[in-house]
Amino acid sequence: MQHGGDLTTAMTLHGGTRGDWLDLSTGINPHAFPLPDLPAEAWTALPAEGARSRLIDTARRAYRLPDGIGLVAAPGTQALIQWLPHLAPAGDVAVVGPTYGEHALSWRRVGAKVHMIGDLTAIPECVRHVVVVNPNNPDGRWTDPVDLAEAARLVDARGGWLVIDESFLDLRPEATAAGLCRDAPVVVLRSFGKFFGLAGVRLGFAVAPPVIAGLIAAALGPWAVAGPALAIGAAALGDERWAETMRERLATEAAALDAVLAETDFAPAGGTDLYRLVRHPEARRMHEGLAAARIWVRRFDWDETLLRFGLPPEAAGLDRLAAAVRALAAEPAHGAVQGTMTGSPACSVTSASTP
Amino acid sequence: MQHGGDLTTAMTLHGGTRGDWLDLSTGINPHAFPLPDLPAEAWTALPAEGARSRLIDTARRAYRLPDGIGLVAAPGTQALIQWLPHLAPAGDVAVVGPTYGEHALSWRRVGAKVHMIGDLTAIPECVRHVVVVNPNNPDGRWTDPVDLAEAARLVDARGGWLVIDESFLDLRPEATAAGLCRDAPVVVLRSFGKFFGLAGVRLGFAVAPPVIAGLIAAALGPWAVAGPALAIGAAALGDERWAETMRERLATEAAALDAVLAETDFAPAGGTDLYRLVRHPEARRMHEGLAAARIWVRRFDWDETLLRFGLPPEAAGLDRLAAAVRALAAEPAHGAVQGTMTGSPACSVTSASTP
Repeated sequence: MQHGGDLTTAMTLHGGTRGDWLDLSTGINPHAFPLPDLPAEAWTALPAEGARSRLIDTARRAYRLPDGIGLVAAPGTQALIQWLPHLAPAGDVAVVGPTYGEHALSWRRVGAKVHMIGDLTAIPECVRHVVVVNPNNPDGRWTDPVDLAEAARLVDARGGWLVIDESFLDLRPEATAAGLCRDAPVVVLRSFGKFFGLAGVRLGFAVAPPVIAGLIAAALGPWAVAGPALAIGAAALGDERWAETMRERLATEAAALDAVLAETDFAPAGGTDLYRLVRHPEARRMHEGLAAARIWVRRFDWDETLLRFGLPPEAAGLDRLAAAVRALAAEPAHGAVQGTMTGSPACSVTSASTP
Repeated sequence: MQHGGDLTTAMTLHGGTRGDWLDLSTGINPHAFPLPDLPAEAWTALPAEGARSRLIDTARRAYRLPDGIGLVAAPGTQALIQWLPHLAPAGDVAVVGPTYGEHALSWRRVGAKVHMIGDLTAIPECVRHVVVVNPNNPDGRWTDPVDLAEAARLVDARGGWLVIDESFLDLRPEATAAGLCRDAPVVVLRSFGKFFGLAGVRLGFAVAPPVIAGLIAAALGPWAVAGPALAIGAAALGDERWAETMRERLATEAAALDAVLAETDFAPAGGTDLYRLVRHPEARRMHEGLAAARIWVRRFDWDETLLRFGLPPEAAGLDRLAAAVRALAAEPAHGAVQGTMTGSPACSVTSASTP
């Protein structure tokens, strides 16, 4: 599996123990929301309806959802990505990419043709559904709200769904496209674990018109979300002050990361305040060199000149990164590799990236 | 939802706060496995491959799985029940019942006709798949291993699957039918939360031939099980001494529950050491009377003379139950209701019970 966030690969290839590594391979906030005290029943009893509805009410406020729009909690946004192609009407799909690779994989699993497109202006006539990640992972690109609304109208006319993956939108919550769910078959995905730094909890949400939300809830079935996740989710999503402070902190730390990367030949290529994407003519060599220094960052099969850096958990980590990057920059350069980040032509079957 | 384990209904109908109630409505062990210390990464990081494989290795030993049989972990057995009908070849299904109602519901959701049958000797010719819960919930009935093997051969010949739900089998682990997965399309479901008393953790397993296990794993996708669930599951399933002691304790406590119920007109109607099913001509009145005393037990839409009692968490709870039952027995009886527990005729579409 070519995901970030698992040091197993790093340790297999380059040795060392978990504690030796500085893991910058994910976009998960390194400053986790402090765990609340959990009542014993959160572990022992089947997750209670009261706890579920408390989480949903809190999430509705945090996600600024107007009445009349459905909200369903799931054991991780990934669980929703797995279910959606099974629940949507049969049909092919356009995925705006390169992006998080699991969307294309899950549609392909139900036999849908997946068309990778560069942006929402390039939706082929042959597709019924559209998937866009906003802001996009890994380049942080924002899709124009006007284009989202137009895509919603288009899939509606075709009897399809527009899936908007807002897994990294907590950094700018006012930008949510959830309002589109009022009038069109739009499913907005929200992730809990990334912004709150609690990816192990497994909690995500689907915002959708009530009929689609009902389909998703029926597919997930009863007790889909664990008792601890219900309690932790409600505590974290209800703490607007923590979120405000964290947004400022992440912006500051992302700027400090920029400063370190700018000291060498890394050219900014996008990102969010939870990760930065940079381009380097010798990205492969830099990746190898960082790994030799036990620093694990993300590289991409589909573009050998890109690297993605998550935020170091503390200042010492940033210093360690800075020292490693400077040492690598001082080494003699090898032959450079060219690369670009583009989607695939419309209406042809393409292999999705798995970033 | 007509499930046990949620006092919301009890409190809505009869008042009281959660702490007032003695909840005997589930078959969940009231003596939970003690939670191990959880490393911070269990919460903060994406569930790591190493933690997942440790859980799987431990579960393979606990479930006595020979090599060559697949094992997949899921966020609860219910999550597997939700997925199976989407993954199996299209076709109708026979469910041995009355039983846990979610099996029939999930097959109906994909458009399959569900035939409720009384036992495995009554499999209609028109079905492709068969579901049996062993031991059965709520009556604890055991299916003959010879009948299971014969059903496995039968569905294999029809290109179908045999689903054996062993959610309550931990009380007699040597009775598992997992060996059938070697030679036939059999999916055995195991539940973690019931025997270990940790239903809020959400952890369950599918044992299946490698090809089917691969389908299930692909449907669940990456990071399906939460970090804490991986760690807790490995600790609990690896503690054979705790399991042995607990089996003896549950047998003793179930016998004590029998003694209390035998003092009045409750006639034994089956069960396991995690719950007892009893028949009473005035079961409705007993249920109401127990609820008035803030004791919540399980009744069934499909047979008004049956009640299911879970184990009280401590001796004081059993004493409280005994006092309530004696007081109710001393009240004048009302008109008795007749009822039987049977399946529905083969090859007709029937409404499943939701016990």
